[in-house]
Amino acid sequence: MAETNLQVLLRRRPKGAPVPEDFEIVETPVPEPQEGEVLVRAQYLSLDPYMRGRMAEAKSYAKPVDLGAVMEGRTAGVVVASRAPGFAPGDTVAGGYGWQRFSCVKPAGLIKVDPQEAPLSANLGVLGMPGLTAWVGLEDIGQPKAGETVVVSAASGAVGQVVGQIAKIRGCKVIGIAGGPKKCQFVTEELGFDACIDHRGDLNAQLDRHCPEGIDVYWENVGGPVQAAVFPRLRDFARMVMCGVIAQYNVVEGADSFGGPPGPNLGAAVRKRLRIQGFIVSDHGWARYPQFRKDMLGWMAEGKMRWREDVVEGLRNAPQAFIGLLKGENFGKLVVKID
Amino acid sequence: MAETNLQVLLRRRPKGAPVPEDFEIVETPVPEPQEGEVLVRAQYLSLDPYMRGRMAEAKSYAKPVDLGAVMEGRTAGVVVASRAPGFAPGDTVAGGYGWQRFSCVKPAGLIKVDPQEAPLSANLGVLGMPGLTAWVGLEDIGQPKAGETVVVSAASGAVGQVVGQIAKIRGCKVIGIAGGPKKCQFVTEELGFDACIDHRGDLNAQLDRHCPEGIDVYWENVGGPVQAAVFPRLRDFARMVMCGVIAQYNVVEGADSFGGPPGPNLGAAVRKRLRIQGFIVSDHGWARYPQFRKDMLGWMAEGKMRWREDVVEGLRNAPQAFIGLLKGENFGKLVVKID
Repeated sequence: MAETNLQVLLRRRPKGAPVPEDFEIVETPVPEPQEGEVLVRAQYLSLDPYMRGRMAEAKSYAKPVDLGAVMEGRTAGVVVASRAPGFAPGDTVAGGYGWQRFSCVKPAGLIKVDPQEAPLSANLGVLGMPGLTAWVGLEDIGQPKAGETVVVSAASGAVGQVVGQIAKIRGCKVIGIAGGPKKCQFVTEELGFDACIDHRGDLNAQLDRHCPEGIDVYWENVGGPVQAAVFPRLRDFARMVMCGVIAQYNVVEGADSFGGPPGPNLGAAVRKRLRIQGFIVSDHGWARYPQFRKDMLGWMAEGKMRWREDVVEGLRNAPQAFIGLLKGENFGKLVVKID
Repeated sequence: MAETNLQVLLRRRPKGAPVPEDFEIVETPVPEPQEGEVLVRAQYLSLDPYMRGRMAEAKSYAKPVDLGAVMEGRTAGVVVASRAPGFAPGDTVAGGYGWQRFSCVKPAGLIKVDPQEAPLSANLGVLGMPGLTAWVGLEDIGQPKAGETVVVSAASGAVGQVVGQIAKIRGCKVIGIAGGPKKCQFVTEELGFDACIDHRGDLNAQLDRHCPEGIDVYWENVGGPVQAAVFPRLRDFARMVMCGVIAQYNVVEGADSFGGPPGPNLGAAVRKRLRIQGFIVSDHGWARYPQFRKDMLGWMAEGKMRWREDVVEGLRNAPQAFIGLLKGENFGKLVVKID
């Protein structure tokens, strides 16, 4: 192999919003797979908000990336060499590791995918971790019933677009929240949500207009002022699915309960019998991946599941794309096409 | 009957903490039971924090008490006359209505109780709504597992004392929070909690000492500074059972999410996969009353369930006792012995 590996390393831990200097791009030799490993050449890298947590030193649900190590991430690509049973050169796979062109991974972390079923990159979005997150969070926590009102923040994002479409399939009224008229138009016209609120406008007035009956399920991706506007509108027995709080990731390093800005007074949780519940897809989700994939491929075949990707060309552009993701600059599931 | 009815009416809606002038005490004729009704002479009236909500005009989970109407409440007493099947004069019952000596009630609201099984007043406490609240909230939301750490606020109160003892029966480490050394001593020495924190002292230091491993279940009865100290100590997958926020009932009239003081930032709910869930016993609890009563009578017979009552003599003293309840002045389940 005449090629080299291209890698994005964590150079230092960001203070607040990450900057390009927090990353380092290096060329290294292509690694050799050990016995039991598969060498994957990535074609797409998934960029996701959770990665901000991995850049911080603070204790969280997963170990931080070490300084000088390759940034964590999932890729989809092609097997180049295999010293593990069940994988052969030419296989297309999801699950390679890290912000890099080549990675050696164990089969447990790989899913062989059929490139005829869906574009390879979809395995990082609707058919991947974000789609599974939406599916498992709605199934386990949101539990939307037909006729209920579901509000989805970051509605045009990787998780939000799937959440809203599943809720529509379940017969709900679905209101998205997104930033700017283009994203809002996409959410209603392409994804079929009933309405979409622009969080740059007057949130309260728009919520009053679109959810006069209140909100039964709130899918929380963002935190901050959007949460503050939605919370008082939760109805009796509402469920607030805590998937992420992207608005806070750059504000508070390792934000704990009082590290961040104050939240809503929880007295309403008694009176309204609210359930506010956080989850992380890796806890239980992957065990249910086969059922999820079956559901999702079914909906895709029926034309009930659409998605938009924001494809950035070239691994060297991944840091800037990730910085933009945390500011909401992407439009759809953000993936990097690896050169 | 030569007796008169004695009633406590809601004279006006309190601003902040209730004062005696918000109530009016009147003597009226003893009511006549209509067909299908039972006339009960109350011996005990239960005073509970939820009643503060009924005095306010704000929308809540139950209708407010009308101005000039009898204050809402549950009593235990003796049947004086019956025009309903299944009840006869002399029967002891729980479930009479209101802050009054006599009430006419329908059988659906009455439970016939055996005075040999337990003191009549216990049907308003461990065997009544507060005990059922503890049992159903732990069973449905808290779900404590052996070895877990359970923290119970208002630990010497009507609900808290039962919560902690059930958690001990389930094999948990149980830490109470109460106000003052006498209550704390009662909680450890009489109820058998592993420790009790005095919320008038340094909450953080005491929580550090007694819960160095963090908290798996927090039973929330109080809100305010106690909640603020406990919340950051919740462990991964912790459950916060939202039963009440007594510290706020007088502060904010009809407090909604932003009516009250700010709460914890909810970002931690994602990272730690917290479940924060409110409930009201009347939603589902009474349907399960027979199972609860069986459990509770069993524990009482085994000597595993102790309780303390704070008995106030005379219905005319009910307003002052209720005012004190909201300030934490009672010690144990507050009941009024009706003259």
